Amino acid sequence: MKPELITQPTLLLDETRCRQNIRAMIQKAKKSGTRLIPHFKTHQSEEIGRWFKNEGIESITVSSVKMAAYFAECGWKDITIAFPFNLREIKIINSFSSDTNLALDVIHAETAAFLNEHLTRKADVLIEIDAGYARTGVLHNDYTAIDAILSLIRISDVLSFYGFYIHPGHTYDVSGLEAVQKIRDESLSALHNLRNRYQHDWPNMSISVGDTPGCAMFDEFPGIDDIRPGNFVFFDVMQQQIGACDYDEIAVALAAPVTGKSESRNEILVYGGAIHLSRDFIKNDDDSLNFGLAAQLHSDGWYRPDPGNYVRKLSQEHGVIKCTPDFFDSVNPGDLIAILPIHSCLTADCMKQYLTTSGKIITMMNR
Amino acid sequence: MKPELITQPTLLLDETRCRQNIRAMIQKAKKSGTRLIPHFKTHQSEEIGRWFKNEGIESITVSSVKMAAYFAECGWKDITIAFPFNLREIKIINSFSSDTNLALDVIHAETAAFLNEHLTRKADVLIEIDAGYARTGVLHNDYTAIDAILSLIRISDVLSFYGFYIHPGHTYDVSGLEAVQKIRDESLSALHNLRNRYQHDWPNMSISVGDTPGCAMFDEFPGIDDIRPGNFVFFDVMQQQIGACDYDEIAVALAAPVTGKSESRNEILVYGGAIHLSRDFIKNDDDSLNFGLAAQLHSDGWYRPDPGNYVRKLSQEHGVIKCTPDFFDSVNPGDLIAILPIHSCLTADCMKQYLTTSGKIITMMNR
Repeated sequence: MKPELITQPTLLLDETRCRQNIRAMIQKAKKSGTRLIPHFKTHQSEEIGRWFKNEGIESITVSSVKMAAYFAECGWKDITIAFPFNLREIKIINSFSSDTNLALDVIHAETAAFLNEHLTRKADVLIEIDAGYARTGVLHNDYTAIDAILSLIRISDVLSFYGFYIHPGHTYDVSGLEAVQKIRDESLSALHNLRNRYQHDWPNMSISVGDTPGCAMFDEFPGIDDIRPGNFVFFDVMQQQIGACDYDEIAVALAAPVTGKSESRNEILVYGGAIHLSRDFIKNDDDSLNFGLAAQLHSDGWYRPDPGNYVRKLSQEHGVIKCTPDFFDSVNPGDLIAILPIHSCLTADCMKQYLTTSGKIITMMNR
Repeated sequence: MKPELITQPTLLLDETRCRQNIRAMIQKAKKSGTRLIPHFKTHQSEEIGRWFKNEGIESITVSSVKMAAYFAECGWKDITIAFPFNLREIKIINSFSSDTNLALDVIHAETAAFLNEHLTRKADVLIEIDAGYARTGVLHNDYTAIDAILSLIRISDVLSFYGFYIHPGHTYDVSGLEAVQKIRDESLSALHNLRNRYQHDWPNMSISVGDTPGCAMFDEFPGIDDIRPGNFVFFDVMQQQIGACDYDEIAVALAAPVTGKSESRNEILVYGGAIHLSRDFIKNDDDSLNFGLAAQLHSDGWYRPDPGNYVRKLSQEHGVIKCTPDFFDSVNPGDLIAILPIHSCLTADCMKQYLTTSGKIITMMNR
């Protein structure tokens, strides 16, 4: 890339790291005997999707009907929409080409009944399970609700039962192997019980898990058929904090022009704010908020960040970076620095395109 | 509008409320003898800009060079870019038509020197002042720094001194008249000292303030020439919390499809997440996070929200709403509800267009 051509906040992508992250997860899935059905909500990009395809991936996971339509348009033929089915989008679902295999996420019997009535094509069904994250899904031991959905699938002309899906997203709220392990054990135990209960009637069902920490921090996936992580394609500071990656695996950074310095506060001001990074944060040890880590750029990418240089405050277009004295002294207005995002999925969604460190522009879907 | 046509998260705009907010601020400026130079970073829209123009506004404030270029293209001829000048954008600044009056924000003498050397057109300069917000600006009593900038303006062929500008954004962090008053008094006192010190040499200088609470909660602006609020065009839940508006003045809400219910938690799940609302939040009395207030929709807009119905959790596309029993019972998958945003500037930037409650689509600038 040519940093001298960058005038505004720009999302840099290190293609080498990104492709390594993709290959590492594919290798892990192979070794453990699971199938990787990667979540594409993080990158939302045809080109990056191609990097997966080139490594042999044929089935993908997405988080909206719009994203499914985009990737179907890009040629993907097997797409899971891992978001509780939105009844208002039935027309769009019915308009997908019949040679695209779709899997839908169902958490209510009413939704299954609606699909039986209104779906004009075939679809697989994943029943999403809540084993403690408390976001969405049928409670893992609410067999009445699960049975109600399954009995509607059994009589359906259009629905087939694919299996159970769980996204233990509360791994994002903890740190360290032990804490992630605990959540993972609960999920695995819930899924194990479901398999025991339902495998007799549904011998071909698959069991899927979806969080990046649970997939990145372990090598074996006992009782799991499919893994569906997404964030690992880029990783980010939050994943580094959890223990799911190293700084050197983070594949995106926001290039931000420096526009001011405050000697009295040892802070620098950048053009790069909440509309570029998103306002996701982690907490520092002293409980202060941290919206990203600053690092120096070089012509092929960025240097390893020092946690002493972090985004303390974010407004719409402003980022205020608390600095070590060395970093402060080395940076001046007119310079460009890198900010490693706290949550790369949201930063990518804000920025809507990438510039690779080798100078190529990569587009994303439009919303 | 036709709610039955809405299938995905959609940002609704109540045009009547929005125009009332615009007129009320214009009236207030007139009565108090100040000039309103509204900040357009909140709405970022040609059409909404026209509503200001129709009420007699001719000068505007923006937060990026890109936004200045967009509004110049829309026909605005007097534009202040209230963001510390980014040296890397000098070429774009030089490419603006000479009949557009530009005012730039300068906080370092080095920037003024750079402009003297590289600017090929005339520009006004606002010196941004920090009177406690600690985001950007020259410290209000750092006369050495202010004098250094002013002496470069004095010898300049291209720069003219417009005046001092202050954005006391820490009013967003407090609540109630007294707390906002305290911050306002500090700002006014700092600006008063600056006027005393510099008005002899710069008799035509103007003094500007920029925050919505400080402009919305008071009727008089002693010692202020220009007010530059932006958020008041829509207001939001944060402004209601601060005391700067009533719920009935909030002019935008996200229409979000309901996709799930959790009986055990009294929560509903909507298609509407961090990429739609942004992750800005306020804290509830019990210190839990609140990412927006839910309300019922009707065909002409939305009902007044009950603070008991709030967005407890936000992921990329999911919103989890904690409900009162009444609200919970009245809502079902397939329904559409309204979510009043915590911070309307960021929600608008996420959504990139509006649907008015009378059914008109209003576009925004692209980033």
